[in-house]
Amino acid sequence: MNGSSAEPHLFVVFGGTGDLMRRKLLPALYHLANKYQLGSQFKILGVARSTEYDDVSYRQFAAEALNEFIGTQDGKSNGWCNECLYFQSIQKGEAKDFVALRARIEAIEAENGLPGNRVFYLALGPTAFPSTIAGLGESGLNDSQGWTRLVIEKPFGHDLETARELNATVHAHFKETQVYRIDHYLGKETVQNLLAFRFSNPMFESVWNRDRVENVQITVAEDLGVGTRAGYYDQSGAMRDMMQNHLTQLLTLTAMEAPAAFEADAIRDEKVKVLRSIKKIRARDVIFGQYDATQNNGHSTLGYHEEDGVAKDSKTETFVGLRLHIDNWRWEGVPFYLRTGKRLRKRVTQIIVNFKMPPVSLFQTFEGCHLHSNTLVMTLQPDEGFVLYFDVKQPGQGMNLQRQALKFRYSDKFGPLPDGYETLLN
Amino acid sequence: MNGSSAEPHLFVVFGGTGDLMRRKLLPALYHLANKYQLGSQFKILGVARSTEYDDVSYRQFAAEALNEFIGTQDGKSNGWCNECLYFQSIQKGEAKDFVALRARIEAIEAENGLPGNRVFYLALGPTAFPSTIAGLGESGLNDSQGWTRLVIEKPFGHDLETARELNATVHAHFKETQVYRIDHYLGKETVQNLLAFRFSNPMFESVWNRDRVENVQITVAEDLGVGTRAGYYDQSGAMRDMMQNHLTQLLTLTAMEAPAAFEADAIRDEKVKVLRSIKKIRARDVIFGQYDATQNNGHSTLGYHEEDGVAKDSKTETFVGLRLHIDNWRWEGVPFYLRTGKRLRKRVTQIIVNFKMPPVSLFQTFEGCHLHSNTLVMTLQPDEGFVLYFDVKQPGQGMNLQRQALKFRYSDKFGPLPDGYETLLN
Repeated sequence: MNGSSAEPHLFVVFGGTGDLMRRKLLPALYHLANKYQLGSQFKILGVARSTEYDDVSYRQFAAEALNEFIGTQDGKSNGWCNECLYFQSIQKGEAKDFVALRARIEAIEAENGLPGNRVFYLALGPTAFPSTIAGLGESGLNDSQGWTRLVIEKPFGHDLETARELNATVHAHFKETQVYRIDHYLGKETVQNLLAFRFSNPMFESVWNRDRVENVQITVAEDLGVGTRAGYYDQSGAMRDMMQNHLTQLLTLTAMEAPAAFEADAIRDEKVKVLRSIKKIRARDVIFGQYDATQNNGHSTLGYHEEDGVAKDSKTETFVGLRLHIDNWRWEGVPFYLRTGKRLRKRVTQIIVNFKMPPVSLFQTFEGCHLHSNTLVMTLQPDEGFVLYFDVKQPGQGMNLQRQALKFRYSDKFGPLPDGYETLLN
Repeated sequence: MNGSSAEPHLFVVFGGTGDLMRRKLLPALYHLANKYQLGSQFKILGVARSTEYDDVSYRQFAAEALNEFIGTQDGKSNGWCNECLYFQSIQKGEAKDFVALRARIEAIEAENGLPGNRVFYLALGPTAFPSTIAGLGESGLNDSQGWTRLVIEKPFGHDLETARELNATVHAHFKETQVYRIDHYLGKETVQNLLAFRFSNPMFESVWNRDRVENVQITVAEDLGVGTRAGYYDQSGAMRDMMQNHLTQLLTLTAMEAPAAFEADAIRDEKVKVLRSIKKIRARDVIFGQYDATQNNGHSTLGYHEEDGVAKDSKTETFVGLRLHIDNWRWEGVPFYLRTGKRLRKRVTQIIVNFKMPPVSLFQTFEGCHLHSNTLVMTLQPDEGFVLYFDVKQPGQGMNLQRQALKFRYSDKFGPLPDGYETLLN
């Protein structure tokens, strides 16, 4: 977060015993602490309703999570957990519990000589956001001797109205500059890669418009079903869970004009211009779907209605596809197809730009000679990279054009990319 | 040659005992005969001054050449040589010798039931062209019951005057439609690949102009010295041996407009338009050089003046570099750099298109962040393929742009390409 991870601070996680903490945040924090040798400047306080943990058992819990998800050798991460981690129960989240939390925070800071820089990270279900934010504000934890930051993971409200309510709650207790609404899916890395690609490669930027592009396709496909998240998911669905945030972000990054500077505000302004230019989406341009049970090579999967925690008559969509148009000088007339869903054939996030066909085929006199359009495939995960499909002549007699690929994979050059959380927390 | 290789014909090679025949023509003819199962329809008559050979010893000579240059197993190519090959000495090349040649050709055709289709391939030094062409014409070998073709390898004359003289000799005895002036260096394959790439990939074609291209560089580099060809080479030099034919061909293919059709005449017309648009080349835009002796890791090479057959005071250039401009709507202001030479660091034939830099760097605020221009490298030999260099962000903190490569190699997809001669004779 603005390179301040190296400043001494206390990282407070609400939802400190949850899945997100175990699977994502702890591994990312562990990597960052090692990378920047944060040592004694950096402490983590897990907060949860549970009263089962104390510092010692919480450190054990964290070490086990690290072993499980990043395979650290026991000795190595144990030391770090013992040195960095604390636990505090928030009980039922009443006023007195937040007062107790504040006292605990101040004690940890005093003990470690920390200057009062604090991150409050809400790794919680969305229903717990308002009370937690209010609790922080009312106990005075919205301010400190150092800086104080509030990090809220999506979803930010359920619809326009609840998003506005949540925003009002946030602003009742925190200044806007303190607030980070984040989505681990789009780590800074992805955003920066996309913008770097677009605005440092004029060969591509010069064909990035309605004259040369036939259509753009943005896909976020998951192979898994709803799994243990059914309780949350059945209330949201693919449109709220993915389309309005992830895919819309990718859309704006793909379609936006060059910002005046590579700065958060300038980039946000250009994204907003894209959103404002989207033509009203008609009902016939949207498709919803729900996954069914499958049987494949003796391997069977549950249908959405059979998942634990899904109402038998649920109409929540697990797939959504939509077509939209961006009504500006660059994109008028170019359809953008956005698709996302669960239990699809494979897990992939891709932006595909299909370029227009040549105006005439020079090779039409050759029987069986087929032109293909040029296509740029930007894969964000897994296996990040770029592929540009183009036609070459097959060697030998005649004129047989074949579609071939110019390829680049990040991992071939840079090794594995950091996890989205690691770049977000960075 | 227009797919007619499958028609029954007699292939007559002048220079039938020479290096070109042994190294290039015989292997190419052998591959083609096998590929199209030409069998009894296809015979080869080697012609040379030598009186040392008869059919039997010539077949032995050919089988040894095949063993040496393509590693055929003895039994396999011996059979083909015995079945296909004949030899006839042209003695001193007097009128009576051509009459005898004609009688021999007719006898071979009668013996094998061939319909009189003939190719006369001049695999000779250029000084022998006029007398051989005249001998063919005067003995009536410029016509037959079937078709008759005359194939002349470059160089076609030494300068404008001698080229016109040779052309007059050719036209005194053959019709223009019978004549094929060829250059093994640019097999049909290369030409077709380049045109297929340019005119079936609009993503590239749309940036193929003065608005987007900074410069174009065409390089034909040889690592070897002049070797055993000094006698010929010292009379010609890099400008005549390579620049005026090979590099100029590549220049026209790179710079030409889309032809109206993919036909020899339409393509030639567009090439001529490029040649006519080249601005007068000033003396200061041309560099000549001569290679010197080198000493590298205990391995030493001769300087040009030390080579056998080179005059000690020779001023023949072994390197030439030139800059030219094409004065038309597409290319005005874009410099084309053409370079060729012997004894350069490595053997490579490449066309490099350097695209312009972005008009502004979005990332200028990041210290040490350097943009690079996009570059397309088309390698014709060795290792045919395409590489497109572009910038990506290095993962991690900051904005470190790195130049990376989108790559395609023909051999990865299609296996080894056929030799230039094979496609030319095809």
